[in-house]
Amino acid sequence: MERYLLTVIPEFEPSDLERIQKAAEERGFTALFYNTPEEAAGMLPQAEIVFGYDGSLALEGGALKWLCTPFAGINQFVNKKVFLGGQAVLTNSSGAYGTAIAEHVIMVLLEILRREKEYEEIIAGRGWVRDLPIRSIRGSRITLMGTGDIGQETALRLKSFSPTSMIGMNRKGGNLGGLFDRIIGREELNDVLPGTDVLILSLPGTPDTKGILGKEEMALLPDGAVIINVGRGTSIDQSALEKELLSGRLYAGLDVFEKEPVPAESPLWTCRSLIITPHVAGNMMLPFTVDRIIQMFLEDLDRYCAGKRLLHLADVRAGY
Amino acid sequence: MERYLLTVIPEFEPSDLERIQKAAEERGFTALFYNTPEEAAGMLPQAEIVFGYDGSLALEGGALKWLCTPFAGINQFVNKKVFLGGQAVLTNSSGAYGTAIAEHVIMVLLEILRREKEYEEIIAGRGWVRDLPIRSIRGSRITLMGTGDIGQETALRLKSFSPTSMIGMNRKGGNLGGLFDRIIGREELNDVLPGTDVLILSLPGTPDTKGILGKEEMALLPDGAVIINVGRGTSIDQSALEKELLSGRLYAGLDVFEKEPVPAESPLWTCRSLIITPHVAGNMMLPFTVDRIIQMFLEDLDRYCAGKRLLHLADVRAGY
Repeated sequence: MERYLLTVIPEFEPSDLERIQKAAEERGFTALFYNTPEEAAGMLPQAEIVFGYDGSLALEGGALKWLCTPFAGINQFVNKKVFLGGQAVLTNSSGAYGTAIAEHVIMVLLEILRREKEYEEIIAGRGWVRDLPIRSIRGSRITLMGTGDIGQETALRLKSFSPTSMIGMNRKGGNLGGLFDRIIGREELNDVLPGTDVLILSLPGTPDTKGILGKEEMALLPDGAVIINVGRGTSIDQSALEKELLSGRLYAGLDVFEKEPVPAESPLWTCRSLIITPHVAGNMMLPFTVDRIIQMFLEDLDRYCAGKRLLHLADVRAGY
Repeated sequence: MERYLLTVIPEFEPSDLERIQKAAEERGFTALFYNTPEEAAGMLPQAEIVFGYDGSLALEGGALKWLCTPFAGINQFVNKKVFLGGQAVLTNSSGAYGTAIAEHVIMVLLEILRREKEYEEIIAGRGWVRDLPIRSIRGSRITLMGTGDIGQETALRLKSFSPTSMIGMNRKGGNLGGLFDRIIGREELNDVLPGTDVLILSLPGTPDTKGILGKEEMALLPDGAVIINVGRGTSIDQSALEKELLSGRLYAGLDVFEKEPVPAESPLWTCRSLIITPHVAGNMMLPFTVDRIIQMFLEDLDRYCAGKRLLHLADVRAGY
């Protein structure tokens, strides 16, 4: 009986598909490629392995044994019976985005600290103002909420800029590689916020992280503090943040929002103390990211064929 | 006889002046502070030590023994007889700007690689485009022309982003701290340019560096290469670079220019593959920089009073 491996990731280049095809065929699979779930629907019930991100690909009752999403987030899959009932396993590509997102965080942070948006306006008007007071990562007290791949890659780079302190917050208490000066749990967050100049969020979207940075938490941050969110928009009470940004007390760089795209009527669009990016910190537009996604998938394909436990298993119940 | 220490640096805050005054008085000097060379003119002939950047402060035939400029560049002072004749020595503040300029370089580099200017335009139009292909410092081949304080602080930070290679070019062959994969002299520059994705210039403005990056050198760079100049505008053949930028073959982040401000009629103002900043990468708008400038001056004040060789002596003949 033929074994099918379906890939439904239109962002992939022909060279990426060839790489997957070659690996699949070497392991006895027939590789099929589609651009949309609709195109894939006919063959989906026969697919043993699916590589894609659309929720409809997690089909119950078919041949599916393993679905790998090229995204880090698994929100599309958390309620799927095919995983909850144990018919198939889910892996994600958390670990592929750290490089791209860390570079985004540092770019946006420096843009805010160095008032780059204002300098761009000055240059757009052909002006030559040189005396805007700026700030530096050097000497900043940084707190990272989330110390997974993104938090670690960000901290690794930030360290070379000589911040005064770098505190990581996670659930498990692990300080991987000693990157952080200190690891705290959520219960200590309010103690460190008053001493935080830069707050970086890279949390997954789960019931536990929903609204984790609320009005009270933000109020604890010192004047001028910078919030950067590259995790999920749901982690922040967005209307409370809007007030802090519009009053000019806090600054932010937001790549994720409660609602995406940001609604046309949102006051965020014209907020001067905010840098908006359209959820691009860690998408698949960086070749290195795509390369890592495929590399991780092929590692697990080897292990799948050898009957070993997959390396990149997601926890469907925890939501990441 | 009273000994006078004159400071003519209007950018300094009252707290900075107090720090200088205290140190000067402890060492038997009368500290005087002025905002302009005109205000200082009356007392200038009696000043033994002058802390300032205006060329007119280098007065011949007076009491001057030591002039310290808070800038890194010494172009204002290279032809001054008071130094050339040996009456007085000149120190500069090279070493105070590395932190600020390194952060600028990395910000601008990431803005170009990640197409931040285009994303800002998309956001300004309330759009939500997410598919611009981007690039990364990871995997880039970087060449730094100039490995002084600025080059080193930049390389130190770039290293944490995992570039493929980092080559430094300097005159003395020194690879301080092993930061660079390789150090080359100017005669090897043309060999490395075809393999350079990112070229960073932090060279002083001297006869030797004038036009060091000319039309022929730029033509050796691969398509899409990024040039960042935070040294002096004279290092680059600006009209040749203009052609490369306007054709879209190369990208640049320029903080310094042949003529500053950039003339109103320059095509650079609207060039899409260029980020212009108005010579602010390393000015005195970052408190850390001012702090370092004063710290370095006070270190040398101690040595001056103890009759020791000053640490931050500039080479008036070499021009830096």
